[in-house]
Amino acid sequence: MINQSLLAKIHQKLPGFTANVNSASASIPIGVSNRHVHLSAGDIEALFGPGYQLTPFKELKQPGQYAAKECVMIVGPKGNITNVRVLGPARDKTQLEISKADCFVLGVKAPVRESGDLPDSADALLVGPAGHVHLKSQVICAQRHIHMNERDAQMLNVTNGQTVRVKTAGQRSLIFDEVVVRVKPSFALEFHIDTDEANAAGLKSNDSVFIVA
Amino acid sequence: MINQSLLAKIHQKLPGFTANVNSASASIPIGVSNRHVHLSAGDIEALFGPGYQLTPFKELKQPGQYAAKECVMIVGPKGNITNVRVLGPARDKTQLEISKADCFVLGVKAPVRESGDLPDSADALLVGPAGHVHLKSQVICAQRHIHMNERDAQMLNVTNGQTVRVKTAGQRSLIFDEVVVRVKPSFALEFHIDTDEANAAGLKSNDSVFIVA
Repeated sequence: MINQSLLAKIHQKLPGFTANVNSASASIPIGVSNRHVHLSAGDIEALFGPGYQLTPFKELKQPGQYAAKECVMIVGPKGNITNVRVLGPARDKTQLEISKADCFVLGVKAPVRESGDLPDSADALLVGPAGHVHLKSQVICAQRHIHMNERDAQMLNVTNGQTVRVKTAGQRSLIFDEVVVRVKPSFALEFHIDTDEANAAGLKSNDSVFIVA
Repeated sequence: MINQSLLAKIHQKLPGFTANVNSASASIPIGVSNRHVHLSAGDIEALFGPGYQLTPFKELKQPGQYAAKECVMIVGPKGNITNVRVLGPARDKTQLEISKADCFVLGVKAPVRESGDLPDSADALLVGPAGHVHLKSQVICAQRHIHMNERDAQMLNVTNGQTVRVKTAGQRSLIFDEVVVRVKPSFALEFHIDTDEANAAGLKSNDSVFIVA
């Protein structure tokens, strides 16, 4: 049995202490991901024109990542969705991340996957002002995950790749199971969920959650 | 500590025993509710014409309830949604049930509420082929709930109005908190969630869940 009050006092004396540090219940801010696409340099040119570069529009919480000014249209066999945000910078391979609700609109069966795990994922058509790109096995629903650096991981007593449970508060409170921990020196502490998950739990960006046993 | 194997044997000898009866883990089928509206007799006439009667199209699992052939359009300050299903039979007061995702599309802030708890809920406009109806404090997001009869309630060891936790399975498994138990002799055992909640948990109608401690 851990004496939480004593633990809090000890944590307060550690270098780099921040409020509410507690190995059992440190608060983690939420980032709600709307549908978005990461584009390769080649696909940026195909969609927006030769030599085109993305225009950063808004910094994201993950260092170096940004929402670009540019948007595209997604087309599936059953429907289309306009004004889908492009995130930058360019990646090696284009990856479209949509919600299950979007899957029904588009008529696309995207599997729930970690970022980058694309084999046997779904297809779609991207349309930009200068052309279109056929995505083949490049469309997923992102598996909920927590970004963090090594120090956060130590504090929360978790390791890269581990799945944990995350508890939310409020009128639609729930416990998310199967939350993947992703540790990288460049990551900022943030629990990423999609719009379906945010709506189901009654959450918005910058609300807080806790890892539970 | 309960001997589950013995408990199962005892249950098998009870009158009305059905498979998987277990006070701790009886499986409950899911019903996913898409956006829908319950109309009063007066509003049916306002939307579809004088003397109009709903046409049953598909029976629902709850005895006596049906999806009608008729659909309406919802209009909010930011957008509209077409082909919204009318459920029958007519009720005393019109009630529109939408998802949080629908709220964003319409520009409507519907609170999470139990059916019938309408004071200070949201407004919207319903449009039908013969006219329109202004809904005033008649729009909610349904609070997740389990319908059951007295026998189910006894078997599951819960009472009307109680809130319970419900566990789901699969790749997007989670535990829903704040699930209201609703007991009535006419109710069929069914866990009702909306499309946001179904998508977030990777569930569809007729999947199963369990009440957990």
